[in-house]
Amino acid sequence: MTDIRWDHAREARTGIPEVIFGRGKTVAQVVRLFEEAKAEGVLRIATQLGEAHLAALQDLAEVDAESRTAVLNPRPALDQPPVGLLSGGTGDIPVLREAEAVLTALGHPVRTFFDVGVAGLHRLQGVMDDVRACPVLIVAAGMEGALPSVVAGLVDAPVIAVPTSIGAGISAGGTVALHSMLASCSPGIAVVNIDNGFGAACMAIKILNRMRGGSR
Amino acid sequence: MTDIRWDHAREARTGIPEVIFGRGKTVAQVVRLFEEAKAEGVLRIATQLGEAHLAALQDLAEVDAESRTAVLNPRPALDQPPVGLLSGGTGDIPVLREAEAVLTALGHPVRTFFDVGVAGLHRLQGVMDDVRACPVLIVAAGMEGALPSVVAGLVDAPVIAVPTSIGAGISAGGTVALHSMLASCSPGIAVVNIDNGFGAACMAIKILNRMRGGSR
Amino acid sequence: MTDIRWDHAREARTGIPEVIFGRGKTVAQVVRLFEEAKAEGVLRIATQLGEAHLAALQDLAEVDAESRTAVLNPRPALDQPPVGLLSGGTGDIPVLREAEAVLTALGHPVRTFFDVGVAGLHRLQGVMDDVRACPVLIVAAGMEGALPSVVAGLVDAPVIAVPTSIGAGISAGGTVALHSMLASCSPGIAVVNIDNGFGAACMAIKILNRMRGGSR
Amino acid sequence: MTDIRWDHAREARTGIPEVIFGRGKTVAQVVRLFEEAKAEGVLRIATQLGEAHLAALQDLAEVDAESRTAVLNPRPALDQPPVGLLSGGTGDIPVLREAEAVLTALGHPVRTFFDVGVAGLHRLQGVMDDVRACPVLIVAAGMEGALPSVVAGLVDAPVIAVPTSIGAGISAGGTVALHSMLASCSPGIAVVNIDNGFGAACMAIKILNRMRGGSR
Amino acid sequence: MTDIRWDHAREARTGIPEVIFGRGKTVAQVVRLFEEAKAEGVLRIATQLGEAHLAALQDLAEVDAESRTAVLNPRPALDQPPVGLLSGGTGDIPVLREAEAVLTALGHPVRTFFDVGVAGLHRLQGVMDDVRACPVLIVAAGMEGALPSVVAGLVDAPVIAVPTSIGAGISAGGTVALHSMLASCSPGIAVVNIDNGFGAACMAIKILNRMRGGSR
Amino acid sequence: MTDIRWDHAREARTGIPEVIFGRGKTVAQVVRLFEEAKAEGVLRIATQLGEAHLAALQDLAEVDAESRTAVLNPRPALDQPPVGLLSGGTGDIPVLREAEAVLTALGHPVRTFFDVGVAGLHRLQGVMDDVRACPVLIVAAGMEGALPSVVAGLVDAPVIAVPTSIGAGISAGGTVALHSMLASCSPGIAVVNIDNGFGAACMAIKILNRMRGGSR
Amino acid sequence: MTDIRWDHAREARTGIPEVIFGRGKTVAQVVRLFEEAKAEGVLRIATQLGEAHLAALQDLAEVDAESRTAVLNPRPALDQPPVGLLSGGTGDIPVLREAEAVLTALGHPVRTFFDVGVAGLHRLQGVMDDVRACPVLIVAAGMEGALPSVVAGLVDAPVIAVPTSIGAGISAGGTVALHSMLASCSPGIAVVNIDNGFGAACMAIKILNRMRGGSR
Amino acid sequence: MTDIRWDHAREARTGIPEVIFGRGKTVAQVVRLFEEAKAEGVLRIATQLGEAHLAALQDLAEVDAESRTAVLNPRPALDQPPVGLLSGGTGDIPVLREAEAVLTALGHPVRTFFDVGVAGLHRLQGVMDDVRACPVLIVAAGMEGALPSVVAGLVDAPVIAVPTSIGAGISAGGTVALHSMLASCSPGIAVVNIDNGFGAACMAIKILNRMRGGSR
Repeated sequence: MTDIRWDHAREARTGIPEVIFGRGKTVAQVVRLFEEAKAEGVLRIATQLGEAHLAALQDLAEVDAESRTAVLNPRPALDQPPVGLLSGGTGDIPVLREAEAVLTALGHPVRTFFDVGVAGLHRLQGVMDDVRACPVLIVAAGMEGALPSVVAGLVDAPVIAVPTSIGAGISAGGTVALHSMLASCSPGIAVVNIDNGFGAACMAIKILNRMRGGSR
Repeated sequence: MTDIRWDHAREARTGIPEVIFGRGKTVAQVVRLFEEAKAEGVLRIATQLGEAHLAALQDLAEVDAESRTAVLNPRPALDQPPVGLLSGGTGDIPVLREAEAVLTALGHPVRTFFDVGVAGLHRLQGVMDDVRACPVLIVAAGMEGALPSVVAGLVDAPVIAVPTSIGAGISAGGTVALHSMLASCSPGIAVVNIDNGFGAACMAIKILNRMRGGSR
Repeated sequence: MTDIRWDHAREARTGIPEVIFGRGKTVAQVVRLFEEAKAEGVLRIATQLGEAHLAALQDLAEVDAESRTAVLNPRPALDQPPVGLLSGGTGDIPVLREAEAVLTALGHPVRTFFDVGVAGLHRLQGVMDDVRACPVLIVAAGMEGALPSVVAGLVDAPVIAVPTSIGAGISAGGTVALHSMLASCSPGIAVVNIDNGFGAACMAIKILNRMRGGSR
Repeated sequence: MTDIRWDHAREARTGIPEVIFGRGKTVAQVVRLFEEAKAEGVLRIATQLGEAHLAALQDLAEVDAESRTAVLNPRPALDQPPVGLLSGGTGDIPVLREAEAVLTALGHPVRTFFDVGVAGLHRLQGVMDDVRACPVLIVAAGMEGALPSVVAGLVDAPVIAVPTSIGAGISAGGTVALHSMLASCSPGIAVVNIDNGFGAACMAIKILNRMRGGSR
Repeated sequence: MTDIRWDHAREARTGIPEVIFGRGKTVAQVVRLFEEAKAEGVLRIATQLGEAHLAALQDLAEVDAESRTAVLNPRPALDQPPVGLLSGGTGDIPVLREAEAVLTALGHPVRTFFDVGVAGLHRLQGVMDDVRACPVLIVAAGMEGALPSVVAGLVDAPVIAVPTSIGAGISAGGTVALHSMLASCSPGIAVVNIDNGFGAACMAIKILNRMRGGSR
Repeated sequence: MTDIRWDHAREARTGIPEVIFGRGKTVAQVVRLFEEAKAEGVLRIATQLGEAHLAALQDLAEVDAESRTAVLNPRPALDQPPVGLLSGGTGDIPVLREAEAVLTALGHPVRTFFDVGVAGLHRLQGVMDDVRACPVLIVAAGMEGALPSVVAGLVDAPVIAVPTSIGAGISAGGTVALHSMLASCSPGIAVVNIDNGFGAACMAIKILNRMRGGSR
Repeated sequence: MTDIRWDHAREARTGIPEVIFGRGKTVAQVVRLFEEAKAEGVLRIATQLGEAHLAALQDLAEVDAESRTAVLNPRPALDQPPVGLLSGGTGDIPVLREAEAVLTALGHPVRTFFDVGVAGLHRLQGVMDDVRACPVLIVAAGMEGALPSVVAGLVDAPVIAVPTSIGAGISAGGTVALHSMLASCSPGIAVVNIDNGFGAACMAIKILNRMRGGSR
Repeated sequence: MTDIRWDHAREARTGIPEVIFGRGKTVAQVVRLFEEAKAEGVLRIATQLGEAHLAALQDLAEVDAESRTAVLNPRPALDQPPVGLLSGGTGDIPVLREAEAVLTALGHPVRTFFDVGVAGLHRLQGVMDDVRACPVLIVAAGMEGALPSVVAGLVDAPVIAVPTSIGAGISAGGTVALHSMLASCSPGIAVVNIDNGFGAACMAIKILNRMRGGSR
């Protein structure tokens, strides 16, 4: 078994600590990384965990099956307005839950607005006042991926768009949603990889970290 | 020069006469087909005409440079509510003008709703009462192609979606808009090829022809 | 478990009630939505159900394993000519069965014409009189997807083309059939996503709803 | 300028002499190859010629602008039934003219059946008796490329399918027609590259050469 | 369960009887088609059979696990030189075995030349005399798909190229081999779909049927 | 000529005024929009202008040929640290100049770091102190698009990645750079469309607008 | 079962003996090839072995589960500096282990530098002195595939780049890494197929074999 | 006009000096870089030059229109065996000429073997003795790109494969040749980007530089 070279200085350099990407790692590798963190009393986060990882971490960390994450020693919640997490449909929610796990582990509060897809605009319009109060928005959608375009035309917060792999036929796997978000006619959107709730959270955290100090 | 085999019986079979597809045809071929129609006093329509075609047909037919069409002996206008033509942006309009030319040549009135894209939803909401009065809608959009999804969630008329080649980067050429429309989360949409205003008009005409007799 | 936000007003807005898309939903979520409908005595339709969904709904609704659908409290049959459902091969039939389940649940009668693919044209020619009597046609094909092009050249009804994922090698997954239908040389075709029998039915229903009132 | 290494033994090995592919060759290179053939009194064929090539060869060989070919010292016509050349539309004809130029230069007679596309099946049915008399068929189509599938279901001759780059939107460039022909549900079709009339002719010639001796 | 509409007249029209494509068909459907053929004493062929199909047909027909085919009442062998079947590697053999099963069921003898790929040319050169004696060649290769190009440059027989799905990384699934064969710099090649041994056999049979009568 | 429906309320809603996208618009349309802005004394910005647009606006606005932009009545510069604009190579600079034109028109100062691509890391390392002082970074690269990944691993500011169409062979057009940036192994990157300097600027402005008030 | 035609002369011709590619081969085929080599006392190498192959070879050869290889009768180690094997992340290691197995079986020593990806450049910089001592480098990376570009800008040794299938969303399967490496802005890189550790080793061996004799 | 940041230390680091990539650079930029080199008496190389670049450099450097390169102060020829440059067809030659210009500017002799494509194997076999004498081979091919696979099976030198954009239909632009080379069944091949003669030369130079010192 090959050892893992940990990037201890990443948080100092980038504001975000190294996070364990579970896919392709053995249960033993992941467990040891959490045991080390427990011994040192430091924060540890893992994403994209499989069933076996989740079971093995049950007593070591706070695990969440929907988002497939585990968190140990989360940071205390910061006193700031929440990041808004919006989803087009029910199937997009696990991706946002991954973002939520990373954000809250690092102290950033969130607020969720699920099932507000464009097939029934009244659902989005009913929550817009609360959405506008968020300093940053993470908007996830699959299928045709239209939700970030509609949202970005209505708010002055930056929109981090997350295409999801929810879809069928031509849109199975998320490429259609990804391309749709990149091609958006609404300004003020930037996009992360398909199903990449972790990446969206990191972008939000970098923005929020800088906001806390003003624009320095 | 190779002659063209005309499908004289197409209107009897399908409700839509053969229409000249200008691309790849010589000026002489197109002019002769209009001269024959003039001699016989029958309807003739051409789409996808180049500059040379348009110039040569100037005195033979009603030519329109924006839609690149020519029409001779149009049918009289039918007494029925108009087909709604909606565009996301300015660049999509020539594609809708092609649909308009074919529809009106065959007697079907239209009503246009341009520049109602999803980046500013209030523009669409301001015209929805008139949109709802149309029995069939043709909705064109380029870039992320989200407009048909939003419209179909608001109306009970069938939506014929036309992706346009308006776009840049990943969406240049219209494939992103096409895929987005096929993947729509809103029910009651069917899609034609990129920039195919003619095809959208044909689908609308087949629907309208059948509507005029009720569902028979 | 995350709750589902139901779009109760969808039928009023669009003529088609919200339908449960089974993929990605838990058995518990789907069962509860049917139990609510049973308690309220209202129509409920689900598509794309898995084995576990079908088993759990056995006593609650009319389930059909071939189309992977379930229906509760279907609407009474309307007095109108049937929607024509045509398939190129045997493998395309489940997709048409999904369309049939949605159409008949909402009261629209259908008539099926299976195995009439272009490799043996006499099979299609033998049923053309009955096909021509249908006000709307849904035509499904996989592989090279040529059937809608041939049919649309022979009828005056609108053709809703459904590419299926039936195929091998380059056509596995249905993209070849999809592109072929979009590129059709026959006018009067519009296309839905691969294997999207539900979407085809919705387009047909919007057309039929409008036909029932004439073109208003 | 770099010289060209001529494969003099190709006809002895394969039954087909080397043919000049004009694209990417200079006018001087092409002219010299024809002058050499004139001096030696041997057959020479060039395809894919540009305007400048055609002009320079005007007095040296029989040039044809529609097929962009030039032929010197063609072989006498063989006494055998003609190869059938079928096209879906008008735009496919130049590709078949290239095949015709190569076939007739090597002595194989042809018979053309143009504009018999699937949007109006009666046109094909009207010529089927003559089509059935051909020992080999070359069938060209663009757009959705359905014609070879329909033809192959009606004849016992081998069908060499040639996709053409005629199309628009998703089918521009010929990939849709190519894939459609490869995916055909009709048996007894083999396919050459897009717009490759030359390649189709070569396959036909290899078949015909072998047929002339029976199956040996 | 939906019944199957059998195309009884296919052999009369095209020279090739309808063949059962096993994928997507139930065991019961396939068994019944063989039982009918047994009762009538006629030829029946099935390809692309699954494990369950093969087991169920064990006592009804001659089944072959490598090619996944079953044959009942094969035609007697014709007195003609064999079709040559060449493979680049070991993995391509099952595809050629499918072609062999169809060819021999219809009476056409074959000769195999396996493992003669371009990474070691001497293997091909060692069998070229026998290859040249075949009236038609079916050449299968995966990965970079170069074998048909090399073979076609050495023989005067028509080459039917079959790309196989053998490959890894960029060539997994066979698209690279398919495109390579279509793009071949050697004339006299035509291509069938990936892994389509059946289609290659059908093309060969149509050629051989015509050869038997000379070019008529 | 079709009129343009201006979205006057966009800045109030989103913090960014509507900007003219020059492609596909006539010179007359663009000139009139600048004349209106001049009459009203308001800001106007245009991007993606052609030669004819640039010439016609010469006396009406500040035009820049490298970025293909025009600006009228820019906002005064804000007192805040500059947005960092980094490019991998020389060819990426026009895309960053478009971002610069939009940012400075709206009062946001910038600082450029050009030609710091990964083929010579010392160039980037030499400017890292200044890069780290920027609150937001826009990083443009073509070819393999690796620069944003390297930069994001070194800073705590959010990185807006802009793939450019600079490249050759497989990377011509920018898709490789786009995909590379989406797939980055470094956290804290979000991506805009190919060559979309305008979109990157809008995302930066939304972040900066929010930073100016802290996280509210 | 079909036999395998072994290319005994490959090492004499190319410097590299034939190696067994395990995928698609039966356990019996692979075992027999090792038994033959054992009887003859010659070197034998297999790659891409499945679980069953590995188990069956346990007592016959040195098997390695991480690299999925087996080696019998390896050559003695040559006295030369080691090939450098670099990986971006942990997931890329099995691909390098395959290269290592082939290199060491043929006597070429290696040195590994794992987990030195571009998200934390300091890790690469810390090992550069040792990397520069290697005559040839094999650099594997998944996701955005940037590592070979960065390395090649820092060394004078040839870089053989191996894209790996490690990735998610748009980069799943390795195509993004492959394209990124081909598009590299750093000179002195050549690329092999995705996950092709074997191919990278072969290229390195051909280089090293020639180096041992100087440039001859 | 933006200045260019020159990487003066590249040759010290990598063994290859920075080379001017002409595309996207102005004539003035390129001329100035050559004037600086002339003043300093140092080597300068430019590739991918346009007509205007070539004309402007006529009196400053040795320019070559076929390869679109310019060289000033080339290094003296080294005493070593030549790099072998092989092409499949005539159209691939300019790409090899680019490699030749870079190699000879840096003192590495070359030997060319043009027009040895796989459609006529005897041409390659006739030169194999000379090919085997080369320490490194650069093999260029378009269309199906099979030549490197055949060559690598016959030699013990490393093969650097260069796909070219020569092709038509599916192979236009070079992607088919690229994929074919990556998928090669012959070991000991590594691949550079389409038409990238420069990149192939750089890989060869890094190999040769190391060979000159043995494997160090």
